[in-house]
Amino acid sequence: MTYTKAWLNYQPVKDAPKSVGVVLPEMGPIAESIGQELILACEGMYGVTPVFDGTAFMAELQILFIRDQSGDFGEEGYRIEASPESINIIAGGQRGMLYGMFRVLERLRLRGRKRYTIESIPSNPFRMLDHWDNLDGSIERGYSGLSFFFRDNEMTVTQRIRDYARMVASIGINAVCINNVNVRGVAAELITERFRKPLIEVAEIFEAYGIKLYLSLNFASPKRLGGLDTSDPCDEQVRAFWKERIDDMFTNVPNFGGFVVKADSEGEPGPFAYGRTHADGANMLAEFAAPHGGIIIWRCFVYNCQQDWRDQKTDRARSGYDNFIGHDGEFAENVILQIKNGPMDFQVREPVHPLFGGMKNTNLMLEVQIAQEYTGQQRHVCYLMPMFRGILDFKTYSGAEADTVADIVSGRAYGNRNCGMVAVTNTGDDENWTGHDLAAANLYGFGRLAFDTTLSPERIAEDWIGLTFGTDPKVKENVMRILMMSWPAYEKYTSPLGIGWMIKPSVHYGPDVEGYEYDRWGTYHRANHMGIGVDRTPGGTGYTTQYPEPLASLYADPATCPEELLLFFHHMPYAHVLKSGKTIIQHIYDTHFEGAEEAAEMQKLWEELEDLVEPAAYARALARFQHQTEHAAEWRDRINTYFHRISWIEDEKGRKIYD
Amino acid sequence: MTYTKAWLNYQPVKDAPKSVGVVLPEMGPIAESIGQELILACEGMYGVTPVFDGTAFMAELQILFIRDQSGDFGEEGYRIEASPESINIIAGGQRGMLYGMFRVLERLRLRGRKRYTIESIPSNPFRMLDHWDNLDGSIERGYSGLSFFFRDNEMTVTQRIRDYARMVASIGINAVCINNVNVRGVAAELITERFRKPLIEVAEIFEAYGIKLYLSLNFASPKRLGGLDTSDPCDEQVRAFWKERIDDMFTNVPNFGGFVVKADSEGEPGPFAYGRTHADGANMLAEFAAPHGGIIIWRCFVYNCQQDWRDQKTDRARSGYDNFIGHDGEFAENVILQIKNGPMDFQVREPVHPLFGGMKNTNLMLEVQIAQEYTGQQRHVCYLMPMFRGILDFKTYSGAEADTVADIVSGRAYGNRNCGMVAVTNTGDDENWTGHDLAAANLYGFGRLAFDTTLSPERIAEDWIGLTFGTDPKVKENVMRILMMSWPAYEKYTSPLGIGWMIKPSVHYGPDVEGYEYDRWGTYHRANHMGIGVDRTPGGTGYTTQYPEPLASLYADPATCPEELLLFFHHMPYAHVLKSGKTIIQHIYDTHFEGAEEAAEMQKLWEELEDLVEPAAYARALARFQHQTEHAAEWRDRINTYFHRISWIEDEKGRKIYD
Repeated sequence: MTYTKAWLNYQPVKDAPKSVGVVLPEMGPIAESIGQELILACEGMYGVTPVFDGTAFMAELQILFIRDQSGDFGEEGYRIEASPESINIIAGGQRGMLYGMFRVLERLRLRGRKRYTIESIPSNPFRMLDHWDNLDGSIERGYSGLSFFFRDNEMTVTQRIRDYARMVASIGINAVCINNVNVRGVAAELITERFRKPLIEVAEIFEAYGIKLYLSLNFASPKRLGGLDTSDPCDEQVRAFWKERIDDMFTNVPNFGGFVVKADSEGEPGPFAYGRTHADGANMLAEFAAPHGGIIIWRCFVYNCQQDWRDQKTDRARSGYDNFIGHDGEFAENVILQIKNGPMDFQVREPVHPLFGGMKNTNLMLEVQIAQEYTGQQRHVCYLMPMFRGILDFKTYSGAEADTVADIVSGRAYGNRNCGMVAVTNTGDDENWTGHDLAAANLYGFGRLAFDTTLSPERIAEDWIGLTFGTDPKVKENVMRILMMSWPAYEKYTSPLGIGWMIKPSVHYGPDVEGYEYDRWGTYHRANHMGIGVDRTPGGTGYTTQYPEPLASLYADPATCPEELLLFFHHMPYAHVLKSGKTIIQHIYDTHFEGAEEAAEMQKLWEELEDLVEPAAYARALARFQHQTEHAAEWRDRINTYFHRISWIEDEKGRKIYD
Repeated sequence: MTYTKAWLNYQPVKDAPKSVGVVLPEMGPIAESIGQELILACEGMYGVTPVFDGTAFMAELQILFIRDQSGDFGEEGYRIEASPESINIIAGGQRGMLYGMFRVLERLRLRGRKRYTIESIPSNPFRMLDHWDNLDGSIERGYSGLSFFFRDNEMTVTQRIRDYARMVASIGINAVCINNVNVRGVAAELITERFRKPLIEVAEIFEAYGIKLYLSLNFASPKRLGGLDTSDPCDEQVRAFWKERIDDMFTNVPNFGGFVVKADSEGEPGPFAYGRTHADGANMLAEFAAPHGGIIIWRCFVYNCQQDWRDQKTDRARSGYDNFIGHDGEFAENVILQIKNGPMDFQVREPVHPLFGGMKNTNLMLEVQIAQEYTGQQRHVCYLMPMFRGILDFKTYSGAEADTVADIVSGRAYGNRNCGMVAVTNTGDDENWTGHDLAAANLYGFGRLAFDTTLSPERIAEDWIGLTFGTDPKVKENVMRILMMSWPAYEKYTSPLGIGWMIKPSVHYGPDVEGYEYDRWGTYHRANHMGIGVDRTPGGTGYTTQYPEPLASLYADPATCPEELLLFFHHMPYAHVLKSGKTIIQHIYDTHFEGAEEAAEMQKLWEELEDLVEPAAYARALARFQHQTEHAAEWRDRINTYFHRISWIEDEKGRKIYD
């Protein structure tokens, strides 16, 4: 199957030198990758094959890799000193050289041979992608085809995996977990001999691009694989089982990073079954991984998914904090808790999870989702960097001087070393990798932002557009407008004022206002004739009290609560007047009409690029824009009709709302 | 796998004779079945093996089969002349003898050796069961295990099929279609050599119990099996394909009855694709079946399943009539149109389909569903004979002096010979055949009612209870109460005043008030703050005009419309006062509280039988009653909460309705 090169499509540029010479200071798998990439890039951009020998210094453009012994750059940082004739990439290690090289190629493609100096050290130690790939080849919440790691309960090792590694290395990813956190069926056997050979091959490919390989494991493996009658993490036989498996994996799989664990969550097994804590479970695994420098990534997505809708006191939003806060400081140094950005589940709009800033003595990793499970599933454009920007900038008021989420997950706030950011990724075996061609901006953007949390969404978008579609100003202008308006538009037609979950159950796509309202998932909007929203104040579920002051009070008072989260925190009458001067019901009507119009506008902006974008890519995206326009209108009508029927309040502007 | 004997469980009775003699006038497969059944029954009831030779006349109880040559009884009628010593079964054919014998056994078990005379000629020529069994073994809308006809794309021929044939013959069934009307995958090949051998075996088993074998066919078979590029029923190659297949089937499968066809319905192929009518399609098949005495059963379940919910003029209820009424008189004599009892789809409450009484010059068959797809799925008790009684008694005002549905489908009203009743059946390979032990009353009842449409639901229930659970008066009293209260109770907690479809989409089980409200299936309730219901009057969709007067006017006026159908025909304000003096909203609240209480009461009535019913059967049904009680409470709460939230009207009685 053919596939695109995404943003690594090296096209001819104007200021091509006649020759390129490269000096690499050492050999090794990463150095080899660097060399291959430079050949590919120089041939694509310049029609020139670089030389790697002593004649390098006679070339019109020299690219010199220099190892810096000071330690200032760590393993991953770099400095670039560039002039039109010579580019020095100074780094402390091979990964720094790799990242520096990709940065150099990006600059050469976007701006040409210029004089500049850049210094960059990654903000986050861990910059990770989680694949929810199943061994049968399906991808849970995957919207871009099938897995390129697994098919029919076997691993596949192909050139595509190498190209994938190149792509994600180019944006600074240094850890990838290749299998679904829900470890079902034969997936549990990934930690056994059965998959050893292809696993080693994938690990070696990853190693050549500076990526550690991670696997999701099933906490019940001692019973399921080991034939034991328990998986109690404190049981000696269970411990022996894990020691053997973990030693085996780290000893025999090169470049192995560790494990991701979803335990006691949505039906997955975990330590609770044995009266043990999450710390008991995670630390046991960590104990055996530690001698190998291995990491245990433990997910905090733990809640009661058997809630009674009648119960207005239980609050899923509370559960992550309630389950983990009491264990702050109990987790081993090589355990990282993986916390979703918000307390619910990757909704279009949520407050920041109160565990950020709550658990000051625990290694934390911010988990986001670029697979767009709840944000249009790669059929609607929804550029997520503005959302992630907001999350990273969120001040937690946890006590440190610099205590934003970015400060915390980088380790700066509380001195952690094992921490960072992870995204549930959005790739599959579709021709264009990400279903929607514009969804690649989320993959690219996540990597860039995780590497440098100071970047603006616009800056990232600008780079991605240039690398993907070239430097035509009209393309740049229109695609930039599309990307930057896309998340706000999606929010407008799907999620007014912080109310999410008005979606079709299970598939999580398309409008269904009451789809989850009477279900067991803890995801309610409580709409009635008079109003809508969930009271999470101390008089309600008390979720606001999980935040420190001044946040707790800010959220608890409708007058100070950020309006984009008003209905997340409060049950409000439709007649409540917002700062805009509109009532809530009028805001709902207006935003739904606006959002649908904006979807149509995005389609129009794309259609203006018909002759400026590669035809296949144009056609692929056009079909999705057409769907989005139609589907946004469906959202508009269903939501407006629902709220008109229940509130019986007319639209002030007299627009068509169906009976 | 073991399984129960359902109502053919011959237990010892009190007035056992010391010997039984049987005289059968002729031999043949049916006579052999009669002999086997009598042996089984006499051994079970009396501990005596009957003799079939000349010494029969020396027995204490003589059973004599006498062929009546007058023709008065047809092939299926019989007269029984019984005294404590001698029972004469006088019949015109072997099937009459078979049915007479089962009737005799029923009387012997329920009432003992008494003096009586009964004469019975079946009301309906066709008394059929449709299995929606798929070849992989699953059953579409099946709630009692897997198929006992198919497994893993093969047919299975087992003793269970013979016992099934006994069971359904004992209630007078004379036609069975064994495969799903949605003919997918290899099921299309049932009409080829591939399944010939087991098909012949099943056909022979059926023949021994007077049952004609039918198959569902795929209208696109000429393309799918014949390699043609069209399935146009007027194409000569297509006609040649069907002639060959149909000749082959009737020639080589003994006792073959014909075909059931679902065409141009819910995505199934049909003549519309070629600009042909249903009559074109059905008559073509009928032409080739006619020389063999074969029958084509053509389903009228045709509607637009891609409706836009915004469209308030299109009405699924209209579609069957609109699609077929113009073709009255066009169908061949050996075509039967199979019409669901109501215009929607087996809901808890619907008006009678206007095609009954509409198509006076066409052979019609009434289709009902005992599989309880929308009436509790054999987890809730819902005894359907009261519903069927009402349908049969419905006066169509079509012109004939006697023009009830029973008059029409029996052929009495308009002189049809090919007509009758069919049920989508409720059996599977569960131990007790029907999932819920009490669901067997629907299978038993359907057969009895189709054979004699004058029977009352109570009479049928009384017989079934006695044959299944014995003659203990407490068992009889409690089970009778459960059965007779079950359909009204289910209606109370699920379907107020003719509004159905407030169910979870796809699975059709459990409450979801808005589950279908914005979907494409044409199944809406249009509830808003002020009222609920669908305006099907001439000012609305005009569906009422499909009925003749006085029905059209009766339904069109809320003052005369039967209240149990008020919201089916009218959009009414919640404040509308019913004849009971209650408002509609209060009626909704009251019936939901009542319905849930009645579910609990049914459980209690069953629990009183703990020591009186066979323990395994007691336990099986108890678990289902417990579920029903809980699930009815869930229905009560979700529906009441929904209507309270939207109407904002309080329950007059101040009962708990959740916010």
